[in-house]
Amino acid sequence: MFREKIKVLDCTVRDGGLINNHDFDDRFVREVYKALSLAGVDYMEIGYKNSRKMFSDKEFGKWKFCSDEDVNKIIDGIKSNTKISVMADVGRVDMDAVKPASESPVDMIRVASYAKDIDKAIYMVNEFADKGYETAVNIMAISRTLDNELTEALQQLDEECKSQVVYIVDSFGALYQETTEILVKKSREILKTKEVGIHAHNNQQLAFSNTIEAIIHDANYLDGTIYGIGRAAGNCPLELLIGFLKNPKFDIRPILDVISKEFIPLREKIEWGYIIPYAITGILDEHPRTAMALRKTDKKEDYREFYEKLTAPGLE
Amino acid sequence: MFREKIKVLDCTVRDGGLINNHDFDDRFVREVYKALSLAGVDYMEIGYKNSRKMFSDKEFGKWKFCSDEDVNKIIDGIKSNTKISVMADVGRVDMDAVKPASESPVDMIRVASYAKDIDKAIYMVNEFADKGYETAVNIMAISRTLDNELTEALQQLDEECKSQVVYIVDSFGALYQETTEILVKKSREILKTKEVGIHAHNNQQLAFSNTIEAIIHDANYLDGTIYGIGRAAGNCPLELLIGFLKNPKFDIRPILDVISKEFIPLREKIEWGYIIPYAITGILDEHPRTAMALRKTDKKEDYREFYEKLTAPGLE
Repeated sequence: MFREKIKVLDCTVRDGGLINNHDFDDRFVREVYKALSLAGVDYMEIGYKNSRKMFSDKEFGKWKFCSDEDVNKIIDGIKSNTKISVMADVGRVDMDAVKPASESPVDMIRVASYAKDIDKAIYMVNEFADKGYETAVNIMAISRTLDNELTEALQQLDEECKSQVVYIVDSFGALYQETTEILVKKSREILKTKEVGIHAHNNQQLAFSNTIEAIIHDANYLDGTIYGIGRAAGNCPLELLIGFLKNPKFDIRPILDVISKEFIPLREKIEWGYIIPYAITGILDEHPRTAMALRKTDKKEDYREFYEKLTAPGLE
Repeated sequence: MFREKIKVLDCTVRDGGLINNHDFDDRFVREVYKALSLAGVDYMEIGYKNSRKMFSDKEFGKWKFCSDEDVNKIIDGIKSNTKISVMADVGRVDMDAVKPASESPVDMIRVASYAKDIDKAIYMVNEFADKGYETAVNIMAISRTLDNELTEALQQLDEECKSQVVYIVDSFGALYQETTEILVKKSREILKTKEVGIHAHNNQQLAFSNTIEAIIHDANYLDGTIYGIGRAAGNCPLELLIGFLKNPKFDIRPILDVISKEFIPLREKIEWGYIIPYAITGILDEHPRTAMALRKTDKKEDYREFYEKLTAPGLE
């Protein structure tokens, strides 16, 4: 029997935006929104709520900023039960410019934070919550967070934070299912009144299975992206997740449609997915930035050299 | 600490042969053998031991037949501890033509069988074992094998079969980790004197994680293929498996090299991997043959139509 509490959040446009400077055109974003709405996906994360004072809108597309006006243009005229989410990074948001939820098309704000910045994240979340938004905290780089630091962050979230959800984020695609199990169990134990979520990266082709593992241990908020799009190796493929979940409200067919029509052509233009340098950074539990840089050079397929550089001794 | 009993079997040339009629040239196969030998992989499965009386060698390449002479040409002059394996299908082998192991470069013969054909498989295995080969039985299509049939097959294998190993084969890439756990535990319970192995297909990007799940529950024989090559969605990527295993005898670098030099160019010519119609047959627990046929037509990206055909009612 299906678990009604499970909520699926699609971050196609938000995480996918990390590979094209958040520059998806409105037509494409509306097609994604239509497909997610028809598929019964609970949330669509459309981008970042960054301040235009800190980033140039000449350098970045509109989904780096997610103005209410731009979001309204996307959802206008489309029948939908899919809520809109935006992501806020610690220290990059003009807090005063965020209107109350009642005046905004945005339903949820998720604050992405390292465990060490959790105080700042809690401050932001509580302000958003007071403005009427649903809120979540995404703890990034969980595979490199020390156990005692994570314990403290989770305890603080439980006691001080108004968010409904705390996500475990496997930023580097480094987790295997045993560690996923441990982290989800630990989070469920400490977070007495909050739901646990999972956002997995796919460097080692484990994003989907780690998401299943999280479900097994009672995580109820699940991130995915269409055709697995996202920075570097990308994310848990939404179509696989929808294919796995038993809730009859989900329909995989609109997702299959939009992959055929939009994502197969898009994949010819921008790169994501199972690519060996991203697998290597996943295996080594490293940020993919070195691999992303490599992919822009003529050594992009020189895997051994890349591996040997990353594993060279000398840091002891 | 690593588990010394774990043996890795690469079936790149054997399972990869299913997408090119077993027609890899000697240079390529030698490069694979060199890489596996340097990487410390325990076995290389090079093809099928089919009878030339049943299949035409005009239609199929030499790795459909694996004559001792052809195998000798590959391994000649290469320093290696990697053993050679071939696969035998029930009913397709000219048993009398198989020489004693002492006269052959082949070390292991694996018999692939559905649970219902297990009597025939046992007969073959015992004959190969008597000729001095290491032997294994691969139980195919495990996701569609009824529990009572599997129980009976496993009991019979335990009592009557001389094979050292019994593999669970997720032919359709349909297993999730919960079922993998159940099947491996069940096999370990019944097979008192044999090792359990896993051969997983990657339709839902779960081949690697199901292999890890099998390891967790004490499967010690693990199949992989370089860059995940294999029929349809392919197999567990060997490079990820080697990256995961802790035994210091394994070295990922020769595998990275051969991917750069051989498999990136090869992937431009023949298709395997995460392709939506294969994901769909995996989700639906179906043989990929309908998806393989679709990929040869101009409807190859019409995923919704394909999905709706496979799920159309009418069989009740």
